[in-house]
Amino acid sequence: MRQDHGLGFLLTYENVAWFDGGMVRILDRRAYPHKIKFVECRTVDQVARAIQDMVTQSAGPYTAAAMGMALQAYLVRGQGRDRQLEALGLAAEKLATARTTTEPRMRRVTAAALTAARKALDQGEHDLSRVLFDVAYQSLERRYERMSRVATQLVSLLPERARVMTHCFGETIVGTMIRAAKLEGRELALFTPETRPYLQGARLTASVAAEMGIPVTVITDNMAAEVFSGRQVDLLTTAADAITSDGYVVNKVGTLQLAIIAKYYGVPYFVTGIPDSMAIEDVVIEHRNPEQVLEAGGVPTTREGVKGYYPSFDVTPPHLISAVVTDTAILTPYNLSDYRPPEGEGDYWG
Amino acid sequence: MRQDHGLGFLLTYENVAWFDGGMVRILDRRAYPHKIKFVECRTVDQVARAIQDMVTQSAGPYTAAAMGMALQAYLVRGQGRDRQLEALGLAAEKLATARTTTEPRMRRVTAAALTAARKALDQGEHDLSRVLFDVAYQSLERRYERMSRVATQLVSLLPERARVMTHCFGETIVGTMIRAAKLEGRELALFTPETRPYLQGARLTASVAAEMGIPVTVITDNMAAEVFSGRQVDLLTTAADAITSDGYVVNKVGTLQLAIIAKYYGVPYFVTGIPDSMAIEDVVIEHRNPEQVLEAGGVPTTREGVKGYYPSFDVTPPHLISAVVTDTAILTPYNLSDYRPPEGEGDYWG
Repeated sequence: MRQDHGLGFLLTYENVAWFDGGMVRILDRRAYPHKIKFVECRTVDQVARAIQDMVTQSAGPYTAAAMGMALQAYLVRGQGRDRQLEALGLAAEKLATARTTTEPRMRRVTAAALTAARKALDQGEHDLSRVLFDVAYQSLERRYERMSRVATQLVSLLPERARVMTHCFGETIVGTMIRAAKLEGRELALFTPETRPYLQGARLTASVAAEMGIPVTVITDNMAAEVFSGRQVDLLTTAADAITSDGYVVNKVGTLQLAIIAKYYGVPYFVTGIPDSMAIEDVVIEHRNPEQVLEAGGVPTTREGVKGYYPSFDVTPPHLISAVVTDTAILTPYNLSDYRPPEGEGDYWG
Repeated sequence: MRQDHGLGFLLTYENVAWFDGGMVRILDRRAYPHKIKFVECRTVDQVARAIQDMVTQSAGPYTAAAMGMALQAYLVRGQGRDRQLEALGLAAEKLATARTTTEPRMRRVTAAALTAARKALDQGEHDLSRVLFDVAYQSLERRYERMSRVATQLVSLLPERARVMTHCFGETIVGTMIRAAKLEGRELALFTPETRPYLQGARLTASVAAEMGIPVTVITDNMAAEVFSGRQVDLLTTAADAITSDGYVVNKVGTLQLAIIAKYYGVPYFVTGIPDSMAIEDVVIEHRNPEQVLEAGGVPTTREGVKGYYPSFDVTPPHLISAVVTDTAILTPYNLSDYRPPEGEGDYWG
C-alpha cells in the first residue's frame, strides 16, 4: 500500500479516510494545516456525522463513506447473512444521505459496497470488512488515476507559464494538476480565494500547492475581480460536486461568480471531472446552518438580530463554461452525452 | 451639540471622531460591535496611525483628520503665529497622506482647517483648537446633511419593497438611506457581504441596520452571485472612496465584482456620493499588508510559504454603473461635469 503518491500530506490516502483497527480515521480538514488531528469514527453514525460536519469535503466523503461501509461490516462480523446485509443497507442509507447535493454520487459509492458485500457473502467470504476496505481502497486509487488523466488533459490547455485561479479545494484535481504541470514542464502559479466560511482555499488548496513547491497566492473572496482586472490570470479552473447531463456545474458557493467574472474578462473557465448522469433539476442544493456565516475563526462577526444565509453550493450555467475536462476527452457543456469512460473502466464513483 | 441623530450608536458624531480634553477619541471600528472601545490619540501621529490602521474607515478618516487638526492646534497653543502655522502644516501633511487612495479628499479636509487657522490667527483668536474643532464639527454635520439628501434621492429610485445588496460600510449613506426609506414609507431589506478581511459589512453595516430595526442578512463574499441568481435582490448600491470625473468608482475591494454580477443579472448599480474632481489616472490604489488576508479573527488561515495579495480598493468602470446619486441630481457616470452643489454650499470635504 502506498504511503504517499507524491501529492503531499493532505492527499496521502491514509489521511483522506482510512478503515483500520475497528475505526475509520479521517484527517480533520477543518483544522488543517494548523492542527494535524484525526477524527476517529467507531460507528457509521459517526462517519456520517463527520461528513455532515465537513471534517472532510470535496472527494473525501466518497472515501469516508466507502470506508464507513467496511466499518459497518466489521461491526456486524460473524452475524447471519441477512443481518449483515440489513446492517450494511442501513449504513448505506445513512452515509449516502449525509449531504444532499452529492447524494447521487454517494449512492453509487454505497451501492458498489453493497454489491461487493453480497457477492462476497455468496462466495462464503468471512472477512467482509477486508473486502469492503479493498473496494474503498481500489475506488480511491481509481479516482486518483482517472483524475491524473483529467489533470494531463487540463495541463494540455495551459500556456507555458500558466497563472491559474481556482476555488475551494478539489481534492483529486489540485495535486494531480500540479504534478501533471511539473511532468509537462509547465510553470504554474495559483491564485486561490480563501473560500469562506470554511476557508478551504486558504487552508487546503494553498497548503497542497505550497507543499508541492509552486507559487500560490491567497486572496479574500471579494478580490477575484480585481485580480482578473489586472490581467493576472490566464484561466479559471475548478472541480465540481456535480456536472449535470445538461451542462450545469454545481460546486462550492462562489464558483458561479468566478465564472461570471472570468466570462466578463474573456478568461476561459475549465471545469474538471467526470460527468454525472442526472439533470440540473434533479440536484438539491444544500443549505447549511446560517449561523456559520456569522463567525470567522470562531469569533462572531456581527451583532445579535442579524440573519445569515448559507447556500453551500451554487449552479453555474453552461454558457459560462468553456470546457469540461474529463479523463478521456475535452468536451463542451453541450455535448456531455459524448463522454465515454476509459476502456474497461466501470463507474467512477462505485 | 446633538448626542444622537437617530442613526444609532456607531454613527453618533461623538463616536466617529471627537476632539476633547486634549485628545481625539475614535470609536475602534475594528472591534465593534463586539467591544465598545475607543482609541485615544494625544498626538497627530497617533491620529494618522489610527487612520492608517483602520481604527476608522469610510468617511471616518475625514472627521478624524479634521479633529486631528484641532488637536494639533491645542498642542501648540500659546506659541507664536508662525510656529503654530508650521505645526499645523506638518499635521496636515501627516493626516492627508495616511491613506493614499483618499489623499485628494483628505487634502481638502486639512486645507480647510489651515485656511480657518490662518483667518483666526489674523483675527487675533486665541483658542485655535476650538475654532478647528468647530470646522471639523460643521464639516461632519454638513456631510451628514448633504448625504441625507443623497439618501432621499436614492430612496426615490427604490421599489416599494426594496431588497438591496450593499458592500462594505458607507458611513454616511447606510444610516441616512435607512432613515430616508422609513420616512418615505418604503420597506427596506439589506443583504450585506461580510467584506473580508476587516468584515466591515458584517460588523458595521449589519449592526447599523439591525440597530435601526430593518431586516439584514449577512453573506460571505463568495455568495453574492448565488443571491442575485435567486432573484433575491432589486438593486446594488455602495458608497465610493472616489467618484472620478471620468465616471469611475473607486471603492472597497469587492465592489467591482458585485457590479459585474449585478450587470450580468440585469440589476441596477447605484453609486452614492459627491463626484470628485480628479480623473481615474490620478487615483493611487492602496495596497495593504498582504499578511492581513492570511488570517481570520486573528487565526492564521494557511501555512507558511503562502503569499497573500491585498488591494484595498478596486476600480469599477462607468459602463457597470447605472447611476451616480448625488445630493442635487441623479447623474450618469458620463455627465458628472453637470454636477452642481446645493445653493450656497462650498466644498463637501473641507
